[in-house]
Amino acid sequence: MACVVADETSASRVITLTGAFADRDHGDADAWCPIERALDVIGTRSAMTLVREAFYGARRFDVLARRAGVNETIASKRLKQLVDARLMERMSYREPGQRTRMEYVLTDRGRRLFPLLVALMEWGGESESEGGGVELVHAGCGAPLQARVACAHGHDVELAATEARVKDPRDPQP
Amino acid sequence: MACVVADETSASRVITLTGAFADRDHGDADAWCPIERALDVIGTRSAMTLVREAFYGARRFDVLARRAGVNETIASKRLKQLVDARLMERMSYREPGQRTRMEYVLTDRGRRLFPLLVALMEWGGESESEGGGVELVHAGCGAPLQARVACAHGHDVELAATEARVKDPRDPQP
Repeated sequence: MACVVADETSASRVITLTGAFADRDHGDADAWCPIERALDVIGTRSAMTLVREAFYGARRFDVLARRAGVNETIASKRLKQLVDARLMERMSYREPGQRTRMEYVLTDRGRRLFPLLVALMEWGGESESEGGGVELVHAGCGAPLQARVACAHGHDVELAATEARVKDPRDPQP
Repeated sequence: MACVVADETSASRVITLTGAFADRDHGDADAWCPIERALDVIGTRSAMTLVREAFYGARRFDVLARRAGVNETIASKRLKQLVDARLMERMSYREPGQRTRMEYVLTDRGRRLFPLLVALMEWGGESESEGGGVELVHAGCGAPLQARVACAHGHDVELAATEARVKDPRDPQP
């Protein structure tokens, strides 16, 4: 179990490192950190704004690029990376009397970025002056969305009750 | 209320744009998007890995820079930006017989990045091969953490039930 350092109250506690990971200086984060795996794919502003526009319903290359505010060279490179990382799928479509075009559609893996998108919007919107910004709301009741942290057993989890550990492959997930 | 486009099943639906925001091509995202506000501050890999290490308990400049895998020039620049954006606070401390040093401590605003951190770790950890990676767990029960989306009225919210709208300053938050 976690030891609370004497001079830290629960309000200032961060994540407690446990087991082998308590020696945080051992080993290179590049090798083990899932955050770095995520940032390999969505760690650029252009990747993230393209993903945002896909969540807002854009599918065509030119529409994605324009709404994301990204020039076509960068958009082409990023969309290729997003397809390679299986966040998006390239699909062909054809409107009557038109030539075949390609569109980019979020995969299930891409759609699982939804909590991340909500967390970014919520945090980025905190300091906004009144009005003008965009917000996400629940279609059922109109209340704004929030990103929350829970555990796989369904408990709400505060930062102060969080531990980081090396994942054990022999330990089946609950 | 949202209209479902005829050829889209609920499983493939993304966010529905409503009100003035339904005309997504009107206006420049830079001006209104809270995601861009967030990315202004934490949109670089070095900012994000420094924040990660602050969540893992590092406070001293040299420790933060080393664990984040960032050289001291970049670390110094990023930490200044994080302090300016009120994610971190610079505090002086002094161990007996030593000179005064500065340390960097997450503010409440910095600590509110917790759901974002969990979302990044969860998503980045999805495709990891067995073991080796780090995971966050609930200290109370040992179950892995998950980022979830709810609304301010406490309902769990799926992507397909999400609407985006322009925030109305006259509309008090529920």
